[in-house]
Amino acid sequence: MHGGDLLAAACESTGSIACVGLDPRPELIPDEIVRSAVSRSDDPRQQVAIAFEEFMVAVLRAVAGHCAAVKPQAACYEAYGSAGWQALERIVAEARGLGVPVIVDAKRSDIGSSAVHYREGLLTSSPGLADSQRIAGMDADWITANPYLGGDSVEPLIGSPDEGKGVFVLVRTSNPGAQDFQDQVVGDESLSTVVARKVHQWGAGRIGASGFSDVGAVVGATWPAQAQDLRAILPNTLLLVPGFGAQGGSAEGAVAGCTDQGTGIIVNSSRAILGAWRAEPEGTDPVEAARSALDAMNRQLSAALP
Amino acid sequence: MHGGDLLAAACESTGSIACVGLDPRPELIPDEIVRSAVSRSDDPRQQVAIAFEEFMVAVLRAVAGHCAAVKPQAACYEAYGSAGWQALERIVAEARGLGVPVIVDAKRSDIGSSAVHYREGLLTSSPGLADSQRIAGMDADWITANPYLGGDSVEPLIGSPDEGKGVFVLVRTSNPGAQDFQDQVVGDESLSTVVARKVHQWGAGRIGASGFSDVGAVVGATWPAQAQDLRAILPNTLLLVPGFGAQGGSAEGAVAGCTDQGTGIIVNSSRAILGAWRAEPEGTDPVEAARSALDAMNRQLSAALP
Repeated sequence: MHGGDLLAAACESTGSIACVGLDPRPELIPDEIVRSAVSRSDDPRQQVAIAFEEFMVAVLRAVAGHCAAVKPQAACYEAYGSAGWQALERIVAEARGLGVPVIVDAKRSDIGSSAVHYREGLLTSSPGLADSQRIAGMDADWITANPYLGGDSVEPLIGSPDEGKGVFVLVRTSNPGAQDFQDQVVGDESLSTVVARKVHQWGAGRIGASGFSDVGAVVGATWPAQAQDLRAILPNTLLLVPGFGAQGGSAEGAVAGCTDQGTGIIVNSSRAILGAWRAEPEGTDPVEAARSALDAMNRQLSAALP
Repeated sequence: MHGGDLLAAACESTGSIACVGLDPRPELIPDEIVRSAVSRSDDPRQQVAIAFEEFMVAVLRAVAGHCAAVKPQAACYEAYGSAGWQALERIVAEARGLGVPVIVDAKRSDIGSSAVHYREGLLTSSPGLADSQRIAGMDADWITANPYLGGDSVEPLIGSPDEGKGVFVLVRTSNPGAQDFQDQVVGDESLSTVVARKVHQWGAGRIGASGFSDVGAVVGATWPAQAQDLRAILPNTLLLVPGFGAQGGSAEGAVAGCTDQGTGIIVNSSRAILGAWRAEPEGTDPVEAARSALDAMNRQLSAALP
């Protein structure tokens, strides 16, 4: 299925525009899983990888069917090298087995053949040593990408729409430092607006039956007025909205960039879902706490949508 | 040793400002190594990882002491998932064992704790499951980073100068698409100039005995006039110059951004060194061909320096 249609269909079939951030960190892993992981390996790095995989797979099974997508943060896994990377591969495979679209939040950026390597490793397949041999990559559905290097860094990531993949390009992020460069004024508009116009160009001619292209935009939830302005420039673009929950964005802010039909946005929450168990009484099941936090998020987002 | 001093000392002790790009791709691997790798594993992904490691380690041993640094391109390894990542870990460890500074060209970008995870995994160490346990990361010397997200994405990557690490921030890259955003005019200067001023700020107060800070800048060799302008803004900044050789930059262009003393630049070449054997008569040793290509590059750079 076309990458834009895949996410639009997931929103429709689940009745959710929420994305669950699969961003494990040692302090977010429940004690029981920590003890189990420590008992299963003597290698501290493998222990972390085992714990990440076990908790993320359990959360995945609890949220599947109740969220539009999941979004592993690549940095959380890369922190543990090849062991962490293997955990990420298994988590992505589990999500795909459950039919949950996966957005790998890698914010990759490089040019030419290096950009192709990122695409191949994260989304499709890479060449082997034998002629025309292909080696399956992680096979995520979407990735995030950083546009600073320009069009010849983003275009090789995008590939053919037939492959059913997609790329969310950073446009206006939710962190205070986004003012440093993204808000710089170019002519009579911000740099992030210039980037948005490019995202619209890159997605033109790649629009699926859902009305959305397979080139999306990351637009932070802490800047609702900008999200509305960017939607006007990006009528056929899926917006990935980070910053809901722990990062301080409200539900109203998070959905500010939706279309008139209340579609076209996917709102991410990470720590507020994975770490929900830490605010609950001792004995609360961490996976049930994650699912409850997702259910609450879904209610807030539904109430905020037009 | 302070990160800036580390690279400055390597330039001085080797008499070279060259950086050897360790960017393996299946088509660059000599036939003999391909045959050996295929005989040692039935898993096509492991075969690639074995071949990458064997060729890169052989090249490392041949170029150690004759170049300022080596620069593995993370995308080449990430294309093969956890197997490729393990090869990269071993190659970085080999380089460090040989005393060759390693710049991992990852162009990472994320905010807050995610940026910290990238720093920990690539440069320092990550937390384990047990309290205050630390798990060694890849332990590269420097990484490259993308500034689009702003100061709060770069600052967590930089860490303390005592750790002896460094970060090269993308300022003006060598690809045609760099015109899309980096050359946009902000006030009366380009966005890349705005980024350069920030790089100067980030490096202030972090200048080592060599006169260079541990926050560097990536400045493409195809734009020598810009390199000179950027040097004026960045008097204490090491410049990493990609685009020499295969990407079309000349030696004169590559060194355009050096200081009046002919220092402060490191010039990378990847494909022209690793793939040198492919332009030689059959039977040429690929590792000797790489070393000869490096020697020739060193001569060209020396002749071009003031």
